[in-house]
Amino acid sequence: MNTSTSAGHALWVLAHPERDSLNAALRDAGVAALRSQGWQVTESDLYAMGWEPTLVRPGGADVAAEQAKLLVADLVVLQFPLWWYGQPAILKGWIDRVFESGFGYDVVDPQTGRVRKYGDGLLTGKRALAVVTAGDRPGSLQPRGISGSIEDVLWPLLHGTFWYTGMLPLHPELITKARDLDVGQFTALRDRLVDRLAGVQSEVPIGYLPLDDDHYDHAVQLHDHIAPGEQGIAAHRDVRVPEPCLR
Amino acid sequence: MNTSTSAGHALWVLAHPERDSLNAALRDAGVAALRSQGWQVTESDLYAMGWEPTLVRPGGADVAAEQAKLLVADLVVLQFPLWWYGQPAILKGWIDRVFESGFGYDVVDPQTGRVRKYGDGLLTGKRALAVVTAGDRPGSLQPRGISGSIEDVLWPLLHGTFWYTGMLPLHPELITKARDLDVGQFTALRDRLVDRLAGVQSEVPIGYLPLDDDHYDHAVQLHDHIAPGEQGIAAHRDVRVPEPCLR
Repeated sequence: MNTSTSAGHALWVLAHPERDSLNAALRDAGVAALRSQGWQVTESDLYAMGWEPTLVRPGGADVAAEQAKLLVADLVVLQFPLWWYGQPAILKGWIDRVFESGFGYDVVDPQTGRVRKYGDGLLTGKRALAVVTAGDRPGSLQPRGISGSIEDVLWPLLHGTFWYTGMLPLHPELITKARDLDVGQFTALRDRLVDRLAGVQSEVPIGYLPLDDDHYDHAVQLHDHIAPGEQGIAAHRDVRVPEPCLR
Repeated sequence: MNTSTSAGHALWVLAHPERDSLNAALRDAGVAALRSQGWQVTESDLYAMGWEPTLVRPGGADVAAEQAKLLVADLVVLQFPLWWYGQPAILKGWIDRVFESGFGYDVVDPQTGRVRKYGDGLLTGKRALAVVTAGDRPGSLQPRGISGSIEDVLWPLLHGTFWYTGMLPLHPELITKARDLDVGQFTALRDRLVDRLAGVQSEVPIGYLPLDDDHYDHAVQLHDHIAPGEQGIAAHRDVRVPEPCLR
């Protein structure tokens, strides 16, 4: 972790097919903003790289290169349009292949013999931000909106991938009505993203509970006294961690 | 929809790289069981077909062929190992490409001009079953398990894809500890799947609420009197629909 006076390494991963797109423009603005703040930014533009998403066998030079980028990063940004309420296949396949056994899962602590996961792993402490564009209206991806809150929709990424591997999941940066933006709206969204990146090192991450004996039993279920009676995703959040004022 | 005396068409989609796998064995058993009950079964073995998952531009002969299979199917089975709490990229890319504009979304009712979605669409009334294998222990994918209930984890597929396009989502068939099964355990799981398929036409689907003025307001949020105070995914389920006794 870096202090606020010296920025660190960032990896910006983009999954969008078109160079002339809202997503590419936001990426350009975000990368420029980070660089102006002193970050060393590496990019993985998956479409431009011709990334192969289908996992057939482990390893490969392309996988090793992405793992090396991740290991030096203090901040990981995954930017994508929300397709069928998840990542585009090319980005899902980046995760499927790069986060392989021994890197993303089955990471064993040699001292204890325990598998490191959920708040612990090779990527422990890195900040992870999803920047997501969606065609939905703003109300749709809210807690009582028909699509579910963006944090419930992205649970497999935020908790099952970022937090699973030890990363600190930040609240997603969500851009709705992405198919109908005019220039003024784009400018406002771009400025909001740039402002947010300026404070990304001091943001409070989503407070998911760690997998330890204080919170989970031997069946990896929440102890009865944690969020008693609750059955949903929200039960796995530390209620003492404050919600940010992002929007 | 067919009656229980004459079975209909089924489409079985498998996303697993290995021919000699638990998944392939379960697929073989499931397809054989459906055929023995009179179903006409079409298969899409995505790895064997060399399916291209990356969406670059709409359409293609491969996309049209899959759409034709879907349109005649009364039952759609998607079978996959749970990778990073979602579909393998090859299956996500089957959805990204096949469920294109005018087929999976942006389906407009010519009479009313409304977009058909969430309980209504080109695939209305077809039953959809996810058959999912996971390395997790059984407790992990339960309502208070650390990974979240399988229905919360698969919300983007069950609600955001199946229900979005009008299909009737059945409760997922979940196989846990899939990396450690012995022959006896495999036999029991196979028999459970075969038994379930025998009754698949009469199963009660997950009771997600339809997108209509009775349930959602003009901001596509639940009316205050529907699941009052609830914020999570469960708020979008009709509490009058009974839970099945599957496990």
